[in-house]
This record gives sequence, structure tokens and C-alpha cells, in this order.
Amino acid sequence: MMNYKKYQRQYYMPPAGYTDWVNKESVEHAPVWCSVDLRDGNQALVIPMSLEQKLDFFKLLVQIGFKEIEVGFPAASETEYEFLRALIEQNLIPDDVTVQVLTQAREHIIRKTFEALEGCKNAIVHVYNSTSFAQRQQVFKKSKEEILQIAVEGARLLKDLTEECGADYRFEYSPESFTGTEPEYALEVCNAVLEVWKPTADRKAIINLPSTVQLSMPHVYASQIEYMSKNMKYRENVVLSLHPHNDRGSGVSDAELGLLAGADRIEGTLFGNGERTGNVDVVTLAMNLYAQGVDPQLDFTDMPGICEKYENFTDMKINERSPYCGALVFAAFSGSHQDAIAKGMHWREEKNTDLWTVPYLPIDPTDIGRNYDADVIRINSQSGKGGVGYILERNYGLNLPPKMREAMGYAAKDLSDHLHKELLPDEIFSLFKTVFENVKKPYSIDGVHFKQLNDGRIEAEVNSAYNGQYTKTIAEGNGRLNAVSNALKKAHNLKFDLVTYQEHALTQSSSSKAIAYVGIRKPDGTLAWGAGVDPDIIRASIDALVTAINNR
Amino acid sequence: MMNYKKYQRQYYMPPAGYTDWVNKESVEHAPVWCSVDLRDGNQALVIPMSLEQKLDFFKLLVQIGFKEIEVGFPAASETEYEFLRALIEQNLIPDDVTVQVLTQAREHIIRKTFEALEGCKNAIVHVYNSTSFAQRQQVFKKSKEEILQIAVEGARLLKDLTEECGADYRFEYSPESFTGTEPEYALEVCNAVLEVWKPTADRKAIINLPSTVQLSMPHVYASQIEYMSKNMKYRENVVLSLHPHNDRGSGVSDAELGLLAGADRIEGTLFGNGERTGNVDVVTLAMNLYAQGVDPQLDFTDMPGICEKYENFTDMKINERSPYCGALVFAAFSGSHQDAIAKGMHWREEKNTDLWTVPYLPIDPTDIGRNYDADVIRINSQSGKGGVGYILERNYGLNLPPKMREAMGYAAKDLSDHLHKELLPDEIFSLFKTVFENVKKPYSIDGVHFKQLNDGRIEAEVNSAYNGQYTKTIAEGNGRLNAVSNALKKAHNLKFDLVTYQEHALTQSSSSKAIAYVGIRKPDGTLAWGAGVDPDIIRASIDALVTAINNR
Repeated sequence: MMNYKKYQRQYYMPPAGYTDWVNKESVEHAPVWCSVDLRDGNQALVIPMSLEQKLDFFKLLVQIGFKEIEVGFPAASETEYEFLRALIEQNLIPDDVTVQVLTQAREHIIRKTFEALEGCKNAIVHVYNSTSFAQRQQVFKKSKEEILQIAVEGARLLKDLTEECGADYRFEYSPESFTGTEPEYALEVCNAVLEVWKPTADRKAIINLPSTVQLSMPHVYASQIEYMSKNMKYRENVVLSLHPHNDRGSGVSDAELGLLAGADRIEGTLFGNGERTGNVDVVTLAMNLYAQGVDPQLDFTDMPGICEKYENFTDMKINERSPYCGALVFAAFSGSHQDAIAKGMHWREEKNTDLWTVPYLPIDPTDIGRNYDADVIRINSQSGKGGVGYILERNYGLNLPPKMREAMGYAAKDLSDHLHKELLPDEIFSLFKTVFENVKKPYSIDGVHFKQLNDGRIEAEVNSAYNGQYTKTIAEGNGRLNAVSNALKKAHNLKFDLVTYQEHALTQSSSSKAIAYVGIRKPDGTLAWGAGVDPDIIRASIDALVTAINNR
Repeated sequence: MMNYKKYQRQYYMPPAGYTDWVNKESVEHAPVWCSVDLRDGNQALVIPMSLEQKLDFFKLLVQIGFKEIEVGFPAASETEYEFLRALIEQNLIPDDVTVQVLTQAREHIIRKTFEALEGCKNAIVHVYNSTSFAQRQQVFKKSKEEILQIAVEGARLLKDLTEECGADYRFEYSPESFTGTEPEYALEVCNAVLEVWKPTADRKAIINLPSTVQLSMPHVYASQIEYMSKNMKYRENVVLSLHPHNDRGSGVSDAELGLLAGADRIEGTLFGNGERTGNVDVVTLAMNLYAQGVDPQLDFTDMPGICEKYENFTDMKINERSPYCGALVFAAFSGSHQDAIAKGMHWREEKNTDLWTVPYLPIDPTDIGRNYDADVIRINSQSGKGGVGYILERNYGLNLPPKMREAMGYAAKDLSDHLHKELLPDEIFSLFKTVFENVKKPYSIDGVHFKQLNDGRIEAEVNSAYNGQYTKTIAEGNGRLNAVSNALKKAHNLKFDLVTYQEHALTQSSSSKAIAYVGIRKPDGTLAWGAGVDPDIIRASIDALVTAINNR
């Protein structure tokens, strides 16, 4: 069994009373987004990106709409240093984009970072040191006061070096491992840093509170953020930033509840790349806003293209169930879901509404470059009439009667169950044709002659066969199909009732053909179905009837 | 740009004042777990599982410790029907395990479900109908009262058929698409169902509130749950169950905050398989409890084995960053993380504590069958001294002086950057040997004779060479190494200071060898390093010195 007793909670509750955030309903506008793909994301790859891949990734981030991009830890390796130099020297940073560089609060590292920044127009210098109880105890073996001094000295050096080089870089401070730090102490450290920087309205400081390792439930993190936000010095001149990781699978909730609690800015990555379980997934956060009618300020209209580039750059795979972007997130295999989606799509067309409320589809897949045919209604042994009917209608213009749709649903389900595979639309169409269209065995008809009788009834002379033995029969009916039906019953001693007849033009085929659907009730009460396709609607309906008889 | 205006919020806030849950800190004990892998999980697979795979998966779930397992929708397909029959007829359901079957609230489907259950000892019959605004409007085109009647009639039929067949099946009702349903109305429907069932203390009913599609932030869902819990009839005889999906990436938080809000039970799947973005991941939920010292009541000690079976059964891939189970979730590539982990592991050994508080590792990977060597400290161009030093110490018993560790860190980082690949432990060891061990060019020593002088000093006669040209030199020193060092300086006109000397037995090698490390300071103030390995510690230290000189 599992030895759970070797663990205990490693976080610290904020003082009581910082839960006002719970009374807010949702996030009302997009936060400031900062991508940390090129730093936190990159440092968590088995093989970090090459300079060229980083340059391409940077361009992708700009194109998506990020205005703040952490580009690396230039003092940490030659590749990272050279990457920043390439961005600056090749003029790749648009005027409205700010690059962010990370540095530990250690003098020689800070100096090297400033060297790397030379000539950069808009930059955020992001300094951090770890403040958690565990790291003070085990890694640094230093007191609270000593750790605070590291932060203050780092902050001061940032200020001095920036003044020295005449730049107006913005500053960011992170009490790294904030989630393992006593909130009162984290506040003390942040306020001490702010006291050095004395941020102003036109040169705000960024205080970033990472859940470096997620240790608590997200409502605890949110209350910690509210405590920090409400007690922070110079608060109006501080951009309060969050940097959630995902160790407990609640990175998205840390970010969202943290925004309710007062945060202004999110550091995260595309598709949640990053150390261990990853950083918070900015795609999910942005699309969550979008799905509630809030402008996400990022552009994911070409999600498949973005996914492909991401996978190429990082050699990571996007999970099939990753919200909004995974291969299967719009897929409905189950019959009841397919039925509801098909009805919801119909309803939307009928009502001619712009508003998207289709069941089981939080957003319209076409908004982000996905499509209905390949991504939504997919047929396997779990599927039913709704999905199959939808595919035949949407892809091939076939509008089956509801009960025939059910029969076709069972046929598809059985075939998929038997083949143990998904059925693609063309396989479903081909199944329909094999089972339900113009089936001519064992019964067939060679020729029909109609005569209009005086009372308006129709007489049909039908040349029909069972297994090729032809016989001519004459019968009456109140319509052509009825007359043929009666002739067949008489000729072959058949017992059934003609219960459904429906037809429509085949608009999606190039020739001007019609399709007729016929349902007959057998003596045991069950139904059998057939369809016929012909330019002549009479011929089509007769073929449908014969097929239904052959399908008894 | 993205047309966010086509969306609006599709959920309904509960009445104000149901936020008591926010004052609870964390989940204090495991909920009742119900696996829906074989139903919700299975129905979302491109290729649903075969009968045999389902039987194997069922055994795995039992082995992990699930006591309630939803086995399918027996009226929906032959495979599902036969699977339940196989479980019953082959006696595969342990006495302490209850199987759960899903059915729509439609008479012929309920009857077929009961047929499938014949002979089953412990079963939960789970009936549902969709109650959301969107489905009432678009799919069923029915009033609230009509939808409520469907639920009530389904509930009544469950009760009647159970009494008829003399079984004591338990009942579960789900207002499907609860998250799109007005909470007051959902409560009305659930209470009407409970009024039919009149649950008792020894035959409790299950009311399951699915976030069929996740539409709101998790704190809204939690408040909805608290509202339902506090206003539900027969509450003390109801097991309140949650069934979160993950459309907004907050399935874990829906479940956890919902438990704080009063829920007793969670329906979810291994690794978050399930419709679209999946069901809530029970592995993450259980391990989140575990990581806070709470007994999860499920056994994941063999996580790699469970992962492998899951991937085989479902043909799905577990994401590399999936909490607790993904391939990369314990990996630390970055230098500072490696350093902290190495120090945390040392601290833990020194203090001889059972409690796990190692930085950057929320749990001990060995608890779930992972290991430190392959999973944690991994070396690439982002790595540094801490990681490389840790690997050399842990895998090869080499305890390098701190500053030499730094030099070795740079060597590894450069090699990885150059090769553009991760370095495995044996590649690091081999790099160490190539660069730092017994390097004999250009300087080498062929023989040394020591003589103890009267004042305690040592005289060394050294036969040394530069590129093979040997020369004999005599020099004194206050120790053997010092004397050899002085002889080499004299013989070859070298300038350096011997600043570090350290040695230890090589316990991990079979022969009884020792390793010596020597650091010398060059005239420019930087250090050069060497190591020597020999059964004779004097010989080892001389080889180390010669190597350091060759590495200047």
C-alpha cells in the first residue's frame, strides 16, 4: 500500500478574510499575457530548441499577439545569450513587443544579463530568488533576513545598472517558490523590493507570484493572491503577475481564480509546456475567455497551424484531449451526443442566429480552423442514428426518414463493431448504397405499365421476378406506387404494408436525379427500408419499394 | 480576428450565499471513487475496446481499488451487453465491488438494462436525462415540466422493475448537462426523483451532478454544488456525486472544490480519458490527496505498469506532462532545480527524516515505481553543476569538490549544447573520465621516489616528461604531493598553486581503488582540475595533479 504518511501540506494559509474573489462570477477581460515558452518551456525540453527554432517560435508568438515575451536566461548559456543578441541585432522585436529576460539575484549573473541586453529598446529585467521555507532550510541554509537581503540587493543592482546604461528597462521580481513561502514573509520581501524600485504610474513594476510547485488547492492560492494584492505597497503602480505551474492539475484554475483575486497578468506557455507538469496553458485560458464572449486578445484562428509549428519546434506532442486544440476535443462518437449536436446545428440554421449554443460543442470548431466533417460527428460502434443521419445529410445530401435513419444507424454500428474500426464518411455512404439503394435480389422488376382508370385509380401491369423467374401481374391502387405494391403482393404472395414514402431531389449530385425512400411494415410489426435513385421519380420509388422488400 | 461576440455565458448562477466551501482548506479524506473508464472513457475512443480488453481493464480497476465501476450502457450495443453478461456469468465481480450500468430514462432501454443485469449481486442502475436549457430548447423541444416527468417516470420504472425482480439494486440519477441547467430547476428535478425513491440510511440513492460540458469557472460549479447539497431532500440518505469533464481545463478543480462544497463521490477515469477533453483524471485527484498526507484509497504504487496497460487497452497516449504519471513530470533539466533537488536529497539523508519535502518534487518518484536515475536529474544544455555532480555521486560514487563540480558542469553543458542531445549518466561518466581522469598528455610522470627528511619534510625524485622527453628532478615539500608539485614546477618551469586536494575510496567499484581530486590555480586566477584513480592513494594524487596540469 501507499505510504501517504510521509507527506504533509507544504503551503501556508494567508490570514483569514481574503476571499472576496469568490463573489466575482468570471474573468471579464483578458489579462496582460506574457509568454514564457522560450524560457520555462524551453528549459523543460529533453532537447532545448536551437537558435533557429527559437527565432521561428518568437515570430509565431508575435503573430499570435503576445506583447510580452520572456526570451530566456541569457547569462545561463551561450545559446540563450546569442538568441537575445540575434533578436536585437537583427531587429526582430516589433516596437509594441517587450522582451523579458530572467536572472538570478546574483551580481555576476545580473551583469552578464545587462551585457546581453545592450541596444534593446523595450525590455523587462526579471530577477528572482527562492523564498520558500524548504529552500531556505535545505538549499540556501539562510535566515529569512538573509534571503530578503538577496532580493533587495538584486533589485538595487537592477536599478543601478539600468541607470548606468541610460535605459528605461522595466523590472520584475519573483519570490520563486512563492507557494511554499509564508504569505506574510513573501509580502515583506516583495514590499522591500518595491521600496527599492519605487514604481510610478508611468513605470510600473511587475511583482510575479509563481506557483513554482503547485502545493495547495486553487482557492487557497487565490486567497494568497488577494492577501498579497490588498497589502502590497505601491499597489496602483504594480502589475501583479501570476506564473502557475500544474503539478496538481489545476494550473488553469490557479490562473483564473488568481485573476478574480486581483492579478493583472499571466505568465504561461502555449499548450502548457514547461517544467515537469508544465506551465499554465495560455491557449486554454484565452479560449476560456473567448467561449464566454470575452475578447482574448490573442489570435488562435489557425489553431491547427499553431499546433503543427509548436510540435515541430519543441518535439512535444499535443494531447488528444487538450482543451480546444486536441485531436479529439470536438469528436462525438456516442449516439446521443451526435443526435443532440445534429439537432443543435439544425436549430441554429432554422433560427438563423449568430449566437453559438450547440450542445456538447463549447465553441464552433470552424472558429479556430477545425471542421465539422473531420472533427465532430465520427462514427464507430458507439454511434447511432443521429450521427449517421447527419453525415449522410451533410456530406451527401441524403435526408433519410427518421425511422430509416435508425435502421441505417444500426447497420453502421454493427459494421464498425465487426470491423473494430471507425467508419469514415465515404465508408458510411458506401454502406448505405450497399444495404439500402437499388437492391435487386431476390426480387426484381423488369417493366411497369400504368393506366389511369376512370375513377382516378391507377392500374399497373408489372413484370416482376423472384430469383429471375419473371411473371406479369396486373393490380390497382390509389397511386402508382400503391398499384405496383399491390401487384407485387399478388404476384409473389407477399405480406407487408407500405407505411412510409418520401423523396427529394439529389441536389449534391451533378445529374438531376431524385432519391425515394420507402418503408414497409412486416407482419411481425417491424420495418424494412429501401431507397431508389433515378432521374425518373416513379422509377426511383419503385426501386425503393423493391429494395425494401428485398430487405425484409 | 476572432469573433468572440458569438458567445455568451451558458450557465446559471446559484442563489447568493452558497460559498461556505471557500473557508475549508483542503479535502480531508478520499471520496467514494467510481470509475467510468469502461463507459464514458470507452465511448470516447476512436476504436472502442473489445470484450477482452474490457475484461482486462475491469481487472485492473479492481486491482487499483475501485469499489464502484460503471461498466457500460448495456442497452446501447451488443458488445456492452455481452460484457456485462460475461462479468456476471464468469463471476468476475468481487463481493465488495458494485458494477454500475447507465441507461436513458426511456422504457425499452431501461427494460433491456434490467435484462442485462440478471443474476448480478451488487449493482447501481444509473438513469439520466438531459435537463439543460439548450437541450430542452433545441433537442427535446419540451417544457421544464415534461422533462421533469421523463426523470420521474424513469425513476419510477427503476423502482418498479427492481421490486419486480426481487433485487436490491441501488439507484443513481443524473440531470445530464447539469452545468447548463438552472440550479433551481435541477434541484426540483432531483428532489422529484428522490421523492419517488425515498432513499433510506441503509439504501442510499446517488444523485450525480455532471459538468457534462464545463461552462463556468470552478468556483461557480462549487457554489452550485453547495446550493444543491444544502437544499436536497433526504440529503442524509443521498450520496452526492460529481462527474466533471474538462472542457475548460479545470476538471480537477471542479472535483476538488465540489468536494469542499459537500459532494461525497467522484466519477472519473484513469488519466482523464472520456468524451472530448475527457473526464476528470482520478489519478491526479488521488495523488493530490496522497501528496498532502491523505490516504487516497487507491493504489498507484505501480504507476508505470498501470500506464502501460492503459495505453494498450485504449490506444491513447499519456501526455508527458500529465501530473504524477507523465514521462517528464519528475524531470529536472535546469541547473538551479537540479542543485536544489540534490541538496534536498542530501538534507533528507542527513536528517534521516521520513517526511518528504524535497524541492521541485511534490512526491518521491519511487513511491509510484519511478526512479531517481532515469526520471529526475537529467542532463542537457540547460543543466549545471548540481545535476552533473549528483549523477556522478549517485551513480558512480564520485564526490567531486564543489568547484570541480562546476567545471564538470560546464563541460557537460557544452557537450550537450554541441551534440544537441540529452546526456545519459554513462555519457556523463565517460565525459568525466575523458576530461578529468588520468590525462597523461602533454605532461607525464614515469616514476617517483620519496625520501623522508629529518625535519618531517619530504623529498621527491620525479622522472617527468613533456611530450615524452623525460627528465629527473628533485624537490622538497611539506608532503608528498607538495614535493612532486614543486619538482614539476622546477622541471618544466610551470607556474601554478596547488589549492585543492581531496580523496576518497571508490566504494562502488569492485577493486579497492581510491580517487584523488586536485585543483590548481593558474596565474590568471582561474582553476584547473584533475582526478587520478589508483589502488595506491599516492599514485592517484600524483595522476590527479598531472591531469590538472594538463588541463590548464
